[in-house]
Amino acid sequence: MSTITIGIDIGGTNTKFGIADRQGNVLFQDKISTQAYADFAEYIRDLSARIKAALPANQNLLGIGVGAANGNYYKGTIEHATNLKWKGIIPLAEMLKKEFNVPVIVTNDANAAAVGEMVYGAAKGMRDFVVITLGTGLGSGFVCNGELVNGKHGIAGELGHTTVNYAGRHCNCGKRGCLETYVSATGIKRTVYKLLADHLEPSELRGISFDKLNTKMITEAALRGDIVAQEAFEYTGRILGTKLAETVVHTDPEAIFLFGGLSLAGDLIFKPTIKHMEINLMPIFRGKVKVLPSGLQNQAAPILGASSLVWNYLEKATSTGGSPVLMPR
Amino acid sequence: MSTITIGIDIGGTNTKFGIADRQGNVLFQDKISTQAYADFAEYIRDLSARIKAALPANQNLLGIGVGAANGNYYKGTIEHATNLKWKGIIPLAEMLKKEFNVPVIVTNDANAAAVGEMVYGAAKGMRDFVVITLGTGLGSGFVCNGELVNGKHGIAGELGHTTVNYAGRHCNCGKRGCLETYVSATGIKRTVYKLLADHLEPSELRGISFDKLNTKMITEAALRGDIVAQEAFEYTGRILGTKLAETVVHTDPEAIFLFGGLSLAGDLIFKPTIKHMEINLMPIFRGKVKVLPSGLQNQAAPILGASSLVWNYLEKATSTGGSPVLMPR
Repeated sequence: MSTITIGIDIGGTNTKFGIADRQGNVLFQDKISTQAYADFAEYIRDLSARIKAALPANQNLLGIGVGAANGNYYKGTIEHATNLKWKGIIPLAEMLKKEFNVPVIVTNDANAAAVGEMVYGAAKGMRDFVVITLGTGLGSGFVCNGELVNGKHGIAGELGHTTVNYAGRHCNCGKRGCLETYVSATGIKRTVYKLLADHLEPSELRGISFDKLNTKMITEAALRGDIVAQEAFEYTGRILGTKLAETVVHTDPEAIFLFGGLSLAGDLIFKPTIKHMEINLMPIFRGKVKVLPSGLQNQAAPILGASSLVWNYLEKATSTGGSPVLMPR
Repeated sequence: MSTITIGIDIGGTNTKFGIADRQGNVLFQDKISTQAYADFAEYIRDLSARIKAALPANQNLLGIGVGAANGNYYKGTIEHATNLKWKGIIPLAEMLKKEFNVPVIVTNDANAAAVGEMVYGAAKGMRDFVVITLGTGLGSGFVCNGELVNGKHGIAGELGHTTVNYAGRHCNCGKRGCLETYVSATGIKRTVYKLLADHLEPSELRGISFDKLNTKMITEAALRGDIVAQEAFEYTGRILGTKLAETVVHTDPEAIFLFGGLSLAGDLIFKPTIKHMEINLMPIFRGKVKVLPSGLQNQAAPILGASSLVWNYLEKATSTGGSPVLMPR
């Protein structure tokens, strides 16, 4: 009999879901369109049916982990998500529990990535670290004393909305100059466009529209020697590194992991990030904090991140003598 | 038989020590000169003798907590303290354990203040909060998930060395523009002197030398309507509030407590701090995070902070089935 968990990653476009074991083997994975469902109950019915059809006959299902933007760990809900059709407060854990009758753990996608890194990835055995997810925006998850930091209101780790420049770029959150307007897939695009506007250098990126431009194109251009693309990475890494020097003195992590599109550019992003973090660090921290690529850089990462919530929660419950419940606290 | 702990606060000038019970009653307190002892072994002998003479005849001594700048929680040492005569790595916990044969918990003074707030002060029952200590410098202690955050290297919570202005005031740490060069007893003095230099307004502070000027004088002048003193508080609060808006999105605390000299100025410092924190917060955090005065604003606070380390550690050890040891991890 296989002991398994279900991981679900609810994105604005698609919902990825799968079945994983404690070793991080993904036994099954699939996806459905999130935006195709205006009705949340219908979405849960279809999603549950797809998962049930895939469950092995002889299994021990321990729980379901869900990563979702605006997922609330304490309430098991999705609240006022700006990128989903379902408005208000969605009782996600409650409805999944009705379908599967196992514990359901909900958190935001970056926090799920942090727990995934601890359970399956490169942070195994670490008790203090930070994960930065570089996607359309910039998410982050903090682990301190071996535990995910959710915070009082379940919204810890919004590093993407610390400020780089108080008179800077406009952000979706309503503020200006937020870190994610510079450091993210969208941020580096904005930087490329700023560089193309300010300078005269020829660049292959001059032929690509803002809508079509993506991180992969910028990375490939930089590797081919395109000066504008290279400078865009340098600029992005400088801003990220400078900000990480601030973050480090808060919780003194062993490592900071970079996950997602931008982090796949390797040295192009890591070198300036590390350089500017070290320059700006308080001296007693210098040389102590590693900046590393995530150990979960693969297609199944969102499923593993979500699935890891269950293993992490069960292991915590066992170590303190408690028993798993629907909503952990 | 009374169940008690010993709290020791090692400052550059004096060492305060005392005996406390679980309710925060300080049964005894005294101090000796730290700087009078060039030899650490002699210091420990005299300190121990003074404490032993004060111990009740019929007592149950549970442990010793020590708060010290550069105190290392993991090793029980004081390491390379710039404000002490004892150089290198001082085996503080080991030597105190030889004298008293009870567990000894060492951490830095701001972390001790955070645990003190949780055990005895205004953070009772809170699981996620931050304490900012405003003394000569700016210290901070973070509690997440009900546990003090020490970090990988035992140096978490150095908020005083986040950057306000990369071309700003010179800091003892070697960087420029650190928060504590603006927000601390020393910081507000520097601000008063900057205002006196830049502006023409008459001020009673024009008659006081830099060496003599202190927070109490600035507070009293502000309360008497001195425009320069008032503007100094406004400026200090603006910088602190703006920076706290950054800190909040890291760990999502329930409250931020201000402790020490500057915080005793009440509305003069709290009003601009709260105002500028709220203005600069990411919208989903607005109105959620309290900024409050410490519940330990009294003479015995350093002793209680240090003493609380023992209660906190014993209670944690009990709840997880472990037993107290010299060095917790």
